[in-house]
Order: sequence, then structure tokens, then C-alpha cells
Amino acid sequence: MPANSFGDLFTVTSFGESHGPALGVVVDGCPAGIELDVADFLPELARRRPGQSGLTSARRESDTPEIVAGIFEGRTTGAPIAILVRNQDQRPEDYEHLRNAPRPGHADETLAAKYGHRDHRGGGRASGRETVARVLAGVIARKILPAGVRIVGHALRIGPHVATRFEPDTIESNPLRCADPDTAKAMVEHVAACRARNDSAGGIVEVRVLGTPKNLGEPVFGKLKARLAQAFLSIGAVHGFAYGAGFDVAAMPGSEYVADRAAFGGILGGISTGEDLRLLAAIKPASSVGEVARQGRHDPCVVPRVIPVLEAMVAVVLADCWLLHRARA
Amino acid sequence: MPANSFGDLFTVTSFGESHGPALGVVVDGCPAGIELDVADFLPELARRRPGQSGLTSARRESDTPEIVAGIFEGRTTGAPIAILVRNQDQRPEDYEHLRNAPRPGHADETLAAKYGHRDHRGGGRASGRETVARVLAGVIARKILPAGVRIVGHALRIGPHVATRFEPDTIESNPLRCADPDTAKAMVEHVAACRARNDSAGGIVEVRVLGTPKNLGEPVFGKLKARLAQAFLSIGAVHGFAYGAGFDVAAMPGSEYVADRAAFGGILGGISTGEDLRLLAAIKPASSVGEVARQGRHDPCVVPRVIPVLEAMVAVVLADCWLLHRARA
Amino acid sequence: MPANSFGDLFTVTSFGESHGPALGVVVDGCPAGIELDVADFLPELARRRPGQSGLTSARRESDTPEIVAGIFEGRTTGAPIAILVRNQDQRPEDYEHLRNAPRPGHADETLAAKYGHRDHRGGGRASGRETVARVLAGVIARKILPAGVRIVGHALRIGPHVATRFEPDTIESNPLRCADPDTAKAMVEHVAACRARNDSAGGIVEVRVLGTPKNLGEPVFGKLKARLAQAFLSIGAVHGFAYGAGFDVAAMPGSEYVADRAAFGGILGGISTGEDLRLLAAIKPASSVGEVARQGRHDPCVVPRVIPVLEAMVAVVLADCWLLHRARA
Amino acid sequence: MPANSFGDLFTVTSFGESHGPALGVVVDGCPAGIELDVADFLPELARRRPGQSGLTSARRESDTPEIVAGIFEGRTTGAPIAILVRNQDQRPEDYEHLRNAPRPGHADETLAAKYGHRDHRGGGRASGRETVARVLAGVIARKILPAGVRIVGHALRIGPHVATRFEPDTIESNPLRCADPDTAKAMVEHVAACRARNDSAGGIVEVRVLGTPKNLGEPVFGKLKARLAQAFLSIGAVHGFAYGAGFDVAAMPGSEYVADRAAFGGILGGISTGEDLRLLAAIKPASSVGEVARQGRHDPCVVPRVIPVLEAMVAVVLADCWLLHRARA
Repeated sequence: MPANSFGDLFTVTSFGESHGPALGVVVDGCPAGIELDVADFLPELARRRPGQSGLTSARRESDTPEIVAGIFEGRTTGAPIAILVRNQDQRPEDYEHLRNAPRPGHADETLAAKYGHRDHRGGGRASGRETVARVLAGVIARKILPAGVRIVGHALRIGPHVATRFEPDTIESNPLRCADPDTAKAMVEHVAACRARNDSAGGIVEVRVLGTPKNLGEPVFGKLKARLAQAFLSIGAVHGFAYGAGFDVAAMPGSEYVADRAAFGGILGGISTGEDLRLLAAIKPASSVGEVARQGRHDPCVVPRVIPVLEAMVAVVLADCWLLHRARA
Repeated sequence: MPANSFGDLFTVTSFGESHGPALGVVVDGCPAGIELDVADFLPELARRRPGQSGLTSARRESDTPEIVAGIFEGRTTGAPIAILVRNQDQRPEDYEHLRNAPRPGHADETLAAKYGHRDHRGGGRASGRETVARVLAGVIARKILPAGVRIVGHALRIGPHVATRFEPDTIESNPLRCADPDTAKAMVEHVAACRARNDSAGGIVEVRVLGTPKNLGEPVFGKLKARLAQAFLSIGAVHGFAYGAGFDVAAMPGSEYVADRAAFGGILGGISTGEDLRLLAAIKPASSVGEVARQGRHDPCVVPRVIPVLEAMVAVVLADCWLLHRARA
Repeated sequence: MPANSFGDLFTVTSFGESHGPALGVVVDGCPAGIELDVADFLPELARRRPGQSGLTSARRESDTPEIVAGIFEGRTTGAPIAILVRNQDQRPEDYEHLRNAPRPGHADETLAAKYGHRDHRGGGRASGRETVARVLAGVIARKILPAGVRIVGHALRIGPHVATRFEPDTIESNPLRCADPDTAKAMVEHVAACRARNDSAGGIVEVRVLGTPKNLGEPVFGKLKARLAQAFLSIGAVHGFAYGAGFDVAAMPGSEYVADRAAFGGILGGISTGEDLRLLAAIKPASSVGEVARQGRHDPCVVPRVIPVLEAMVAVVLADCWLLHRARA
Repeated sequence: MPANSFGDLFTVTSFGESHGPALGVVVDGCPAGIELDVADFLPELARRRPGQSGLTSARRESDTPEIVAGIFEGRTTGAPIAILVRNQDQRPEDYEHLRNAPRPGHADETLAAKYGHRDHRGGGRASGRETVARVLAGVIARKILPAGVRIVGHALRIGPHVATRFEPDTIESNPLRCADPDTAKAMVEHVAACRARNDSAGGIVEVRVLGTPKNLGEPVFGKLKARLAQAFLSIGAVHGFAYGAGFDVAAMPGSEYVADRAAFGGILGGISTGEDLRLLAAIKPASSVGEVARQGRHDPCVVPRVIPVLEAMVAVVLADCWLLHRARA
């Protein structure tokens, strides 16, 4: 599988640099006859966009997708769907100082070593902006999943603050996308304090999938949990993946684990049980701190922006597994 | 990619059930001219084998690999290497009671739902015994990595006990493969106590890769961390993957993260930096507890047995990334 | 896709050398619940086997397949199916003279150049014997195609003799598998004459698929004709592939082509129309001639033996396309 | 492998419809540091373009590629290269009559059956215009092949006329791209006569690869000839593939075949020998004849336009095999 593609039957190919002409995605394998319009992408692109609150980066990204292939008279045709998002906030001179100075904790260093020649502007291909492609693909993926599947991500933890309630309807009403309104306030204060000292905060995202179809996932290397793990760790900010009881399984006696179906996270033997999925992602604090952060265009906390990307990747994995299961059922 | 295969250029295909005639592996893409002999596999197969101590399952697995293809006069030829391990401990009558009674917390339930017809004996295809194929592939993978790469896994945590020292030479001298001799004793006692009450214990495995080559990993979906995550979560017992500072990144300020290269775990931008890798796997407690465990053939703690499997998968991922990088360098 | 594997959803992995311990195949992706028994393979293995008549090689291959994985109580389980055929006619000393002397027109030369170290015995991996794996896979593939699909190959041409009738029931009654009984006699005489002067004969095989399902084939690179072409040319003896009117299209005016649906060969736009497929394979004369042939263990005409292999590959391609279409329909 | 992608290490993904907003290609896996500019594509796009002579379609395609990703300061970065070509000659009303009336011999019929919803305008995704993507990819592929490789296609046959000389420098000086200047004249007259009666002509293209590197091609299903066959048959107009002596092998005695290295076509055992490749493609006559052709926008002979597409696909296959070989050498 080429490195910029993901999925066996619902295949997502991502391309584009943060400061090149455009980012984009090709989705191959989407069934025909599905309604799809530019407007479908706007809400998720908006959710992914930085600069939505005083907490996040000042960079203005007005993402207008253009469907250049695969849609005819408002519906998919079975042909590859190609979507382009032009970059508008290109100020390459802002990045000239990074040409030969890799930023600590960024991909700059390894990309330079591996490829020799690289686009140093704002992370280039390794920029978080690449995730626009995932969000676009996720919108399409959701359309082929059976009705009733709901993929809900939220900030379970930010810095020292851990949510203890799950009220999904409150998620979009606070800038960090925490499902616990009280904890959300503490998180906001924490991130504001990070920002004030030019520092950043990481966290843990929980993605729940309500109404998960059963039978998703294939044997051995195609286990649902294995595909999800690859999908999550393909995102730059993600440092870990776990499901169900997560790393807490290390301390659980087997008798407790077996008795608590929630610990399975909706997956047994690598295959979905039909119960809700519970997926966890460890999000590192942004590496742009100190002098870099002082320039004011960096997020003190990328967690809320990563949430729609994680949700999109979950949708892509589920759509792929759904088609795979359908092929042989 | 077919679900029972893994790797783009060094491709591992696993087959076989725990109580069928044989397990095996096909490794496609191994360069020619590499010395390989049946004896090469025996130490790692022995490390994976249960029943090595009073702590573990009584099941006797005397794994004798047979190389049926790909080796000529003691060396690889570039043709696919096929290796077979016959199952000798087949007592299907032991499992007759499981035919229509899926064991809680096992794959039995989802395999039955997904496939209708399944091999119910001892987990069948979903048995931990499948990992014999991984161990065989790992032995070959290590041979194509540059000299000096050393992949060292150990039990970082079992139940409540967390190792605080890393003395790699002590790992094989205690049954739980803990690199901290003092903690090892406490772990052994803990597992013995679990066994006494027909319960089981999980843990966390840390895999360090010393002498990691730089430049391993591809862009976006082929990131080294993404491939490792898929590889880890393809193992039944694994509930989570993390690297470097792991889930602790959630609580770290960015300034701390950036200042501590150990937090990166040897991976930046999804590509190896040349520093040691640090990888973590959450291992669930075995689901065979209570009545099932009382029959006496089950491991109270699979952690030490999972270690050689994790090491093998790391070797496979690194070998694949090594060939991929070589193709385009 | 690894080089020894074929197919996206019904994936065939071939392994083994002609004079190694065994040949075999792993079929991944076969749906569960399909009846499969060793006896199913015997007729096709017998059809592929050399030495069936005075016309063909004296090498005795008594191919006894062993199913080592994927079948439980006589039916598939969705797990990979692995089948082994032991080599029994190993006389490596017969080939010692070939160790450093590549035979003209054989793969010996290029394998030595590419891999350095090779199995020189009887072609090793490049031996026609490798096609045992294809025949095994073809038997399984046929089982997942809808009822009524019939794949019929026959010798359309051998040397100068071209069949003019198609009487499928007569195919197995002459050693060259010609569907035209009169031409068959001339072909037999021609091959006998070749044999008498230690020479060999090539030909053209036509494969017709009666009862082809419609809608098989995917866009662009996954066109049915493209997959079939790859499948055919993956066989050592095949020098060309064509469908429908074949290379005769070069001389046809468009008005004639469009008016004659038979010219389309059952494929339009790369997708099956539901009409019978007509596929053609150019088979080169065996390269073992003169002194090599004089030793008496070589086929003067491999055409009849290639026929079941071509049929098997057609079955594999159709099965894969069938599953692919089902996934998204 | 997704159906609109081709190649393991040098992966080409094609997208776009003939009358949609744009066509394009994503090339993943191109090594970094290679100079690439929009101007590089223009000559090959011009060669592929219809309407270059009175013999061909009147459709005006002024193909201006835009590189939207993967190039930084004039060189590749190892990131996926995405290129777009806008469609300018969109007159959808010209095709309204085809909405429910599939044209005989075209993909219209099978696309409608398979997908239900399709873009009926000018072939949509199945249009020959899709090959723009191949030509773009071919330009990049040539850049990673070793210096000295020269891929030369020409019209070996058109209708009844067969070239008997090979003078490569004359190919571009006649509208049908025949390497035999005398035969070229007869071919031109033949096609003009076809045009006059609203008919069309097919032919045979020969592609020679001068300076072919040795060792290209992988075992079994990845044989060079198998990859080339798939590549050729992925083009709508191609009805057959052969190499070396082609279908003539059917009539050759083995003694003659073995003695004539030209018969091998530069490939033995599926691997390049280092000699020139000789590849043949049967090109069907265009299916637009009679009333459809009378409208005047259709090619009476697509052979010359298919030549640069075939050359491009050869370059893509060779580049992919080159990287594959390099990975393991």
C-alpha cells in the first residue's frame, strides 16, 4: 500500500503541503449513487479549522473544497472522488528562518535527513494541515455506513484535568470539546495559562462510536483494533492508542476484566461486537513553544482540532471494514 | 492487503489454527543470499512457548519448524520462504464443550457471529498459538536489519508492580521477563497469587530498540509509529500502543516535552531519528479465569510470552521500513 | 502487493520450488462455510500433471495435497486456507550439471543475475511445477463463483494446426485438449514429430467462460481484461494475451467490430457484459530441446498442461472480481 | 490495490472524467530531489492530444497541467505529487442524447449496468481522455529510470498495412507514428479512406525499450511481462498484449525459438535480460462509426494517440520494477 493511501476497499489518498498550492484527497472505492455536495464538507472542515477561539492559533484557514472528480449530478458514480482545498494563507517568508533550522520536536529534522530536499514551510507535508484530507474523506465515509452510527470524540483529559461526565450535547459548546461542562472550564483556564507563558498542553481524546455495526474487522493483521491503531498513529499529534479499558488493563485482574464488557471497548477477537466502541488517543502537547509560540500563530492546545480528524479516521476505518465484510458475507 | 498478511516489501502471511494440522508462515520479499537454518528459529520459538515455568500453562508445545520453501543450500534465494510447525498437542475432545458456548472475553463470540462456521477448539485461528508465525517471521526479519540493531522487550509492569530499573541481561533469568530483578520477585509472587485463585494478570511491555537505523518510516499512513501500532494491536492480548512518553504526554507541558528527547521515543514526524526506540504495549489479563483456569492448562499471565511476539513484530516492521527506505534512497 | 500473491479480496499466495520439500498455496479471503475436501483438488491436479500420454514428459508427479489450515469439519471458516503438495520426484543429482550452466531460453539466466543465489534444480521456483499452486487455488475459486459458470480451455492451435470446431465434450478425449477432434489428430502427429526430433511445439489456448456473471471488473487498472492479462502472463509459458477478436482487431474496420458482439469477447469498458468470455493465450514452445530433450523427461508440448492452469487463473480472477463487486453493489 | 491505482513503490492514482472539472494524477513514491517542472509534461501531453492532423478528432484539448503538490522549488520532496489538468472543452449538451442511449462497443453499457448512476458525457471516466493521467505519470517515471533508457512506440500495423522498417527518427514526422516512412503513406491513405466513409481503423503498436536495465521484474505474479500486460490492457483501446515473437510463438518450433534471442523480447523467466524489450499491443478500431463519426469530432484511428500512453505505462512499470529491485538488491 502506498504510504499516502489508507484502506483496502475504501481507499483514501492524501496529498498536499501546508504552504503549497493545495491540499487534497482521492477517495477510491466509494459505491455509486451516494449524494455528495460541497456543502457536506463545510461543517467538518470548520470544526477542524484553527482560530476558532481565543485559545487557538490565529492562522486563518478558509477551507473551500472543490470536487474535481467522481461526482455527477450530485451523486457518486463509482469513480474516484477527488477534492481539492486551495491554500490561501501562504506567507512563505514567515518560514524562511526555518529553512535550515529544524524546530525541536517537529518532523523537520527527520524529513530533512530522510529526503534531503524538503518543503520547510510550516511543516510542509508533515503539517497538521494535511489532516484536511482526512476530514474530507471522513465525510464521505460516514455516508456509506449504515444509518444510526454516531462517532463522537471529546477531550477526556487536558493537562491535569480529566472529564468525569459524558454529555455529548455539550461538546461543541466549549472550545476544547470536553463532554463534561465543569471540567471544560478548568481545561480552558489551563490552556489559557499555557498560552500566557508560551507553552502548550496535550491530552487524551476519547472517541465513542454509538450504534457500531457488528462483524467489522478481519482476522489477524486486519483486526478492527489494529486498523484503528494505525489510523490514529498516522496523525502527527497522536502518541498512543488504546481501546476499552485501555492501559488500565495492566492492573486489572482477569476476573474483573472478563466481568466488565465495557472493558472490551466493543471489540472482541479484533471484531466489533455491536456494542459501542471506546477508543482512546494520547495527544502530545504542541512542540511550538517559547519563542516560536510567542509569534502568536500557534495553538496552545491542538486537542480540540484533532478530535474531528480522529472521528474522520474512525469513519474511514469503519467504512472500509464495512465494505470488506459485505464482500464475503 | 489481505488480512492475514503484513508488510509491503517484507511481507508476512500467517496461517493455521491452534488445533488444526499445522501453523505456518510465508515470508515474501526477503533478499537472496541470507543464511537461514531451522536452528535459527528454535531459541525464539522456545521463548514464546508456554509451560516454561510453574507460572505458565501446562500445555506442551514442542515446536519443530520445517522449512518447506525458499531456502537452497542454507541460504535464501529471493523466493518466498514457507515454514510449517505441526501441532502436536491436539486433544479436540477437550474443547467439545466450547462448540456452542463462547468463552467470555474471547474471540469465540465474534468469530461465530461473523463467520457462522468456526473452529472452536482452543481459539482456532484466534488462538495465541497463531503468534508462532510472527516469531518465525521475526527471526528472518532480524537477519536483514543492519548489524547492531537490538530489540529488547521486557515486562515493565505486571498487575500493580512497576519496574524501575532496566538491566537487560537479567530479563531471561526470571519467568516474567522483567528487567528489574527486585520488581521481578514481586511480580512472580503476584502472578502466583493470581494463579492460586484461578485469576490472571495483565501488564505493560516495554520494547526498546537499541541501534535503530535512522530514516525508517514513510509519510502519513506509513509512519513508523503507525505501522508499529498496527503490528502491536494485531496481537490478541494487546489493548494499547504508545511510544516515547506514551500516555504521559497528556499531562506534560509542551516545554517539557520538547526539552526531553526521550519523550519522542526515537520517532519524529513518524520517522526514526536514529535514537533508541521506546515502545509500550498494554497487555490485558488472560480471559481464562475461574472454572476455565481451574482446569490448569491456562497461563495466569501471558505477558512474558507476548514479549517475543512483540519483538518479532518490531523486527518485521523495521525490516519492511528498511527495504522501503532503501528502494528510494 | 507481494510478488508471489495475486488478488485483492481472494488472495492467492504461491510458494515452493520444483525440487524443494514441497509446493503450496495460501488462499486468504475465501468466505466461510464452503465445503472443501482434498478430493476436490485431485481431478484438476491430475489434468495439470505431466506424463499422461506418450506425448508428454516422463516425470512422475503424484500430487497429493494436504490441507494444513483453514478447513474445519469439511468447510471453510474464513481463515486462510493453506495447502501443501510434497515433491516426490526429487533427484537433485539430475540437475547438478545445470548449477553453473543456465539453459537457453529458461529463467535460469535471469534468476542467477537477479538473485545471485538460486535453486538450479529443474527451474526451482521458475519451474512449471509452481503452477500446482494455481490449480489448487482455482479449485477453491470456482466454489465461490455463482452456479452455472463454466470455464473451458482448449488448444485452439498447435504448431501450424488450427481448430475450426468447438466441441467441448471432446476436449479431454485427446492428449492435446483440442476441441476439434479432426484437428486434434493432426496436432498429435505434429507433436509426435517434434518429439521424434527432440524439438517442441507451442500453440494458442482459447479459454471460454460460459455463464459469466455481468458487472465483473473495476475501473481503469482493475479492468477485467487487465487482471486477466496479468494472470495469464504470470505463467512462464505464456507470451501473449488477447480477448474477443484478439490481434485480429488490428485489421478490422470499426464498423465491423461494432457490429460483431463476439469481437468484444464478453468485455466492454473492462467490465463483463454477461456474455461468454473469449480469452486467448499464446504459448511458447518449450525451451528444452535438442540434448536436453533427448534425456526424455521433457514435454514436447506444454499446451495441454497449461490449459488447466489458465482455467484456474481465470477462476481466481473472476472470484476476486465477484467479491469486489459484491462489496460495493 | 485500489482499482484506480497502479504500482507498488511508484504508485500512480488516476482520477477525473472527460467532461468533469478536471483530470489528474497522484504519484506516490517518487524519490526526492528530482527536478520537475510543468514544462516537462507539455511535449508528451501534446503528443497524446487529438486533433493534431486532419486525420484525427476535431476536439480541442489544450492541456495545461498544474502541479498542486509534491514539488518544492522545482524538485520532488518524496511527498505525493499531484497534478491537475482542467477540462476546457466541456459541452455537456453535445452528449445529452447519450444519457439513456449507450453507444455500441463503448463502456456506456457496462458502466450503466454496474454502477447505476454514471457520467454519460463523452465516456465520462471511461473516456480515452483519462489517459492524460498516465501520460503525466509517465513523464515522472522516466525521470527515475537510469540514463539511457529509451522507450519508443510506433504503429507497426494499421488496417492491412504492416511496417517493415524501423527508423525511429521518422516516427514523429507522420501523423500515424509509423517508423517506416513508406508504409506510413499507405497507412495515412487507409485512414483517410476510413474517415471518408465514417469508419475507423485499428492496428498494432510496437513499443521497443532500448537500454533496458537488467533484473527488472519480480517472481511469479510480479513478472515484468505480467505487469506490462496489466498496464497495457488497462487502456480502453487495447485488445491484446504480447512480447518478443508475440503470438507467432504458436507456430515456432522450440529449436527456432531458443536459437533466436529476439524472440524472448528481452524478458526471460519474467525478468529483463538487459536486451531491448519488444512489446506489442493490439489496438481496436474506434467504436465511434457511422452516425456518431459523421458528427466529425471522432478519431478515425486512435493508434497514434495510444502510442504515448503505452510508452508512459511502460515507463511506469519499469520505474516501479526499478525501485522494487533496488529495495532488495
